[in-house]
Amino acid sequence: MDSAACLADAGLGEIEVASFVSPRLLPQMADATDVVRGATRIEGLCVLALVPNLTGALRAIEAGAHKMTIPVSASRAHSQANIRKSPEEAVAEVRDICSHVGQLPEGRRPGVEVGISTAFGCTIEGPVSEDWVIDLAIRLADAGADSIGLSDTTGYANPTQVRRLFRRLRSEVGAKAGGAHLHNTRGQGLANVVAALDADVRTFDSSQGGLGGCPYAPGASGNIVPEDLVFLLEAMGLRTGVDLDRLTAARASLLDGLPSEPLYGQVHEAGLPLGFTYAGGRPRVEAVR
Amino acid sequence: MDSAACLADAGLGEIEVASFVSPRLLPQMADATDVVRGATRIEGLCVLALVPNLTGALRAIEAGAHKMTIPVSASRAHSQANIRKSPEEAVAEVRDICSHVGQLPEGRRPGVEVGISTAFGCTIEGPVSEDWVIDLAIRLADAGADSIGLSDTTGYANPTQVRRLFRRLRSEVGAKAGGAHLHNTRGQGLANVVAALDADVRTFDSSQGGLGGCPYAPGASGNIVPEDLVFLLEAMGLRTGVDLDRLTAARASLLDGLPSEPLYGQVHEAGLPLGFTYAGGRPRVEAVR
Repeated sequence: MDSAACLADAGLGEIEVASFVSPRLLPQMADATDVVRGATRIEGLCVLALVPNLTGALRAIEAGAHKMTIPVSASRAHSQANIRKSPEEAVAEVRDICSHVGQLPEGRRPGVEVGISTAFGCTIEGPVSEDWVIDLAIRLADAGADSIGLSDTTGYANPTQVRRLFRRLRSEVGAKAGGAHLHNTRGQGLANVVAALDADVRTFDSSQGGLGGCPYAPGASGNIVPEDLVFLLEAMGLRTGVDLDRLTAARASLLDGLPSEPLYGQVHEAGLPLGFTYAGGRPRVEAVR
Repeated sequence: MDSAACLADAGLGEIEVASFVSPRLLPQMADATDVVRGATRIEGLCVLALVPNLTGALRAIEAGAHKMTIPVSASRAHSQANIRKSPEEAVAEVRDICSHVGQLPEGRRPGVEVGISTAFGCTIEGPVSEDWVIDLAIRLADAGADSIGLSDTTGYANPTQVRRLFRRLRSEVGAKAGGAHLHNTRGQGLANVVAALDADVRTFDSSQGGLGGCPYAPGASGNIVPEDLVFLLEAMGLRTGVDLDRLTAARASLLDGLPSEPLYGQVHEAGLPLGFTYAGGRPRVEAVR
């Protein structure tokens, strides 16, 4: 089985499998269409793809992605460096994508999520105004995005800030308040999850083996690790539907594909506590999908 | 400078420098007296020593330790394995130590802290009764301990449990409720700090480079790491009085002494966020003590 199938087999219901970025700039993503098509064959899985612009969105829709996620930087400097657009131009792009999606036949409209990158600080600009992040979220909701999440792209966030900003987000955009995308660059990822839970966040990104990282923080790990996150949530009494043994077993197919990549995570090394129980009993996942 | 002096120089006000365990069983601790005597020469530092019993306490007092910390296991199996005593016998030992200390001249009485080990679960017994942990805390307060903290010796704790147990502790023993000793074995250490903060805990153990570990969890890191903890607290707006650059610089003397020991921690690798500010301004630490 490939990685996505192994992860789905562990109980993950939604996986971001590919990015429809320019194949010229990032040739390693050139096969995004094939990856999305393959993933949509996994029964019951919601297949998510990153799209930076309308061109990418058209490719993602063509490939059959169930959801698209669009990164919009709060930091002007990061936005220019990353996509050569201002945040306002990125909002306009989101509006174009949403209006294109709105013209598709009902039942064939993918969901549109936005993640506000550098929401908790930027490696180029430093602190980012919280008022501006919330203003941007309101504009994105108005542009038609289904949900707007907050991303700690740089691993700068702290729990006080996470709690405050997600509470403000929810009070401003209501049900459109999206999930938390947290990096573990400074070891604060799961501490920030606890704070986000206090602000009623129930959707969390994680990346297998903590892959991802930040090019500005060499040597540091990337996103929070799925096993460590699932263990945290289940131990806290929150059902994830994910089987930790299968999730750990899924690392094998990742290692097959990326044998020289350093992988992170601690639960798979230390094992589960003696007498550990899942929040709602061990998830019943179909053996073969 | 030695490690303790470097750490004090970074602003740490209290350091556990040695264990007065049997030199026959743990010969590497045989020089505890010299270590404590040396540390008491560092101006302004509160020197803490671990003592497992009255014999150890007498040695610690003789050496001039300002405070003693006594581990008492909540798990019967762990207590027997670790100190060949039942928890009740360990409480009796604490009572003996406290009554000895009470007979010392005023001004020469070291503080007596107890850490309840395996308070959140045990690698031999599995789950540990929370009622029993609280019962034990009450008995220890009654035996004369100045403060009773809770230790996640095994890295089993989760934030929900940490919040609940520290709240119960405070409601039962009031001002004698002590600090949190948290391991990062499963990456949950700082997440548990956030939960302990919610329960008004303001004293946290950490160990330089995350040294310590758990013999039952090979490959996993030990206690939470000072740099990562201080960054978390300062970023959350809580003053620690610790300078992070000096704290990181103190790793050099640790590496001198333990060149082959794997050290953990992420903040020293990733560096501080651009524009980072301390909660109450950068601590002013005397350059030379």
